[in-house]
Amino acid sequence: MAGQKGRFITLEGGEGAGKSTQIRLLQSALEGAGHKVLCTREPGGSPGGEDIRNLLVKGNTDWEPLTEALLNYAARHEHLQKVILPALNDGTWVICDRFADSTMAYQGYGHGMNREVIRRLHRLVVDDIAPDLTLILDMPVETGLSRAVARGDGEDRYERMGQDFHERLRQGFLEIAKKDPGRCAIIDATGDIGAVAMAIHDVVSTKLRVNL
Amino acid sequence: MAGQKGRFITLEGGEGAGKSTQIRLLQSALEGAGHKVLCTREPGGSPGGEDIRNLLVKGNTDWEPLTEALLNYAARHEHLQKVILPALNDGTWVICDRFADSTMAYQGYGHGMNREVIRRLHRLVVDDIAPDLTLILDMPVETGLSRAVARGDGEDRYERMGQDFHERLRQGFLEIAKKDPGRCAIIDATGDIGAVAMAIHDVVSTKLRVNL
Repeated sequence: MAGQKGRFITLEGGEGAGKSTQIRLLQSALEGAGHKVLCTREPGGSPGGEDIRNLLVKGNTDWEPLTEALLNYAARHEHLQKVILPALNDGTWVICDRFADSTMAYQGYGHGMNREVIRRLHRLVVDDIAPDLTLILDMPVETGLSRAVARGDGEDRYERMGQDFHERLRQGFLEIAKKDPGRCAIIDATGDIGAVAMAIHDVVSTKLRVNL
Repeated sequence: MAGQKGRFITLEGGEGAGKSTQIRLLQSALEGAGHKVLCTREPGGSPGGEDIRNLLVKGNTDWEPLTEALLNYAARHEHLQKVILPALNDGTWVICDRFADSTMAYQGYGHGMNREVIRRLHRLVVDDIAPDLTLILDMPVETGLSRAVARGDGEDRYERMGQDFHERLRQGFLEIAKKDPGRCAIIDATGDIGAVAMAIHDVVSTKLRVNL
């Protein structure tokens, strides 16, 4: 498949939805099907982007919502230009843990920031670059939060926000998926790991025409 | 003068132009005239903004120009909302070491980034907030750079860029001043400290109707 561009897959969802585990399983499946795969994450994904991530997820700063959106898009631009686009152009498939939908869901729906401002920022930075497929891992808020707390990785700034915030976040992701059904697929993430992986492999096989 | 809004003064210019010294002198003069004065700086000026500043001025990261512009505007939004606007509303005069013109000069003119993209970002974040007066301290590039190197404060990322970069920067500031003569005044910064301070006090007195 030399000369062919890689495909760009993003995973989205609230805290504790199981994205990391499912990304590893999807990577194995795609590699088994003969593809080169790069797994990466946002915010972060590039050396400078990870420095920006630290400001966002570990700091105690009470950022203004627009500041947070700008920091996310700063890290995203760095990530796209230095990591994602070069990999795709090289024929590598890219699986990214969170992408622009998370900014819209967290800042736009969760924090209630003006969504038109986020769309303008998106057009300015990302323009017409879009994932080929976005998997939205959906589960009830309580289930996700109790899983995230059990994980205890120190990146708990969002976990500490109230239940209302996380409900708005979940509805945000579902609305994003509804508005862009060609790109987005909602995956029921309440089942066991194997069942969720099967659902993901089905969607990837169908939408991206690959045998998993 | 209770109930009256403070005035917003920014100082701009290349490396080593003497902004810090002149800001201290202007602060004394304004305080002597009975005003409350807050001196601050960009990038930075707020606790979170200073963390962003560290990424910009001390890091070794070779940021994409648009990433740098986004980081600058993230810090600027935080600075405006948490520091500058509350002070102005409280009747305090604000003197800021660098503001949005520096982003246009450094990224737009120095790095050759698309200036329309910077203008769109500016409208998105700063919108119609503008300094009442911008003093552009101008001097030949070699003079400024040798002063900046002598200062040796470790924030030398820009100083290490080539002479061409600094020439573009200087021309950028002069062009910005030419396009916005109501707000901007060019100050010849080659004279001694007292002479430059006199020139600044003249402009501030005339443009902002204050006796210095």
